[in-house]
Amino acid sequence: MTSIDPANPPRSRRERPAKPALTRQGIIDAALAILRDEGLNKVTMRRISTALDTGPASLYVYVRDTEDLHAQILDALLGPLSARPGAPDDQPHPWRDRLKALLTGYRNVLFAHPEIARMALSTQPSGPNYMALVEALLALLAEGGVADHAAAWGVDLLLLYPTAIAVEHSGPKQASRKAQDFSALAAKVLAIDAMRFPHVARLSADLMSGDGAARSDWALDVLLDGILAAPSRAPR
Amino acid sequence: MTSIDPANPPRSRRERPAKPALTRQGIIDAALAILRDEGLNKVTMRRISTALDTGPASLYVYVRDTEDLHAQILDALLGPLSARPGAPDDQPHPWRDRLKALLTGYRNVLFAHPEIARMALSTQPSGPNYMALVEALLALLAEGGVADHAAAWGVDLLLLYPTAIAVEHSGPKQASRKAQDFSALAAKVLAIDAMRFPHVARLSADLMSGDGAARSDWALDVLLDGILAAPSRAPR
Repeated sequence: MTSIDPANPPRSRRERPAKPALTRQGIIDAALAILRDEGLNKVTMRRISTALDTGPASLYVYVRDTEDLHAQILDALLGPLSARPGAPDDQPHPWRDRLKALLTGYRNVLFAHPEIARMALSTQPSGPNYMALVEALLALLAEGGVADHAAAWGVDLLLLYPTAIAVEHSGPKQASRKAQDFSALAAKVLAIDAMRFPHVARLSADLMSGDGAARSDWALDVLLDGILAAPSRAPR
Repeated sequence: MTSIDPANPPRSRRERPAKPALTRQGIIDAALAILRDEGLNKVTMRRISTALDTGPASLYVYVRDTEDLHAQILDALLGPLSARPGAPDDQPHPWRDRLKALLTGYRNVLFAHPEIARMALSTQPSGPNYMALVEALLALLAEGGVADHAAAWGVDLLLLYPTAIAVEHSGPKQASRKAQDFSALAAKVLAIDAMRFPHVARLSADLMSGDGAARSDWALDVLLDGILAAPSRAPR
């Protein structure tokens, strides 16, 4: 995160009245447009400065480097998420459903931006909207009666899961290749040597069953049940 | 996987007696050496054919393409793993400990080869040693009394976790950048606005506590407890 106060940005030195002044939000908006149209690897300081008709050096007042920029993009994408649940006056659904909805929302953001998902896995997000997401998850875990220590460590695991499955579906050759691999695996499981792999052979139907949504919902329940069962204190 | 029978490989057409005949294992060994010395992006058909003093075309008899080659490398790396646990005559430790040791072994392979970890996340492994790993995990889950459906879906989740944390620690700028991000997050958590993020502020010590090994051991117990608690039949 930059230390620039968005409410009081440095003055643009450019003179032509037709050009809007450079702002952090303007840079992020330009970055999001490039991300959408050309992909994350095109979201560079140089490319954005061209789009904003300025020099790259001007951008460094607002963002540290390209990775910082990408982190700010993720945080901007997370804005609508944390605005939603966890509010005490908005509890029509049980805490578990709201928590799963929040994580599914996070997953959807990452699914829509595979390259951001890869970045979210390999760097530690720490922007204000990400912190608000962590806060909302902790509030819901507390509401669900999860012990403090289990909630603190559990939130990491809960956020890792949607990130990992988003990356899992975002490979360079993603859809077609993954489907091909999956077919190969399915064929392998169905034709499996039952002598050598008896459990795989016996469970082949269950191993291949379920779509992504059903699996994901099941996995989140597994994680929450495990976190609920965790001891209330740090191990050893 | 190739459909070539390793016990009966096609005859090499090369004449010079000093050159060893091309074999699938020889190709994988050469690939592992290049992987170790130069990184996965250098493990290409062309580079291996140079190392083996042959033409790329000769390799295609044994491997389909570069991705198939990478998949075969992963499978070769997993060989020592599945040879070990799950054997009924080797049960000094409880099933849970053996299962965690197996997954930790898998994680260690992926930690040692970050680029393979990224590949393992974005493509579906299906080699014989990977299948043996799945079989060993299913055997241990059955031994632990996990219901069939929960074991079949759970094995996916159990394998996803070590893969995801290996990728998490394998970013392009990995160690230093991740540490830097983590420090930024730690500073943020410690200096957190307690009015805006009360749960994060209250749990800040727990949020930052624990090294990778403790967190990983905790997470695997959470996963196993959740899987043990899962219903024995497919949802809905």
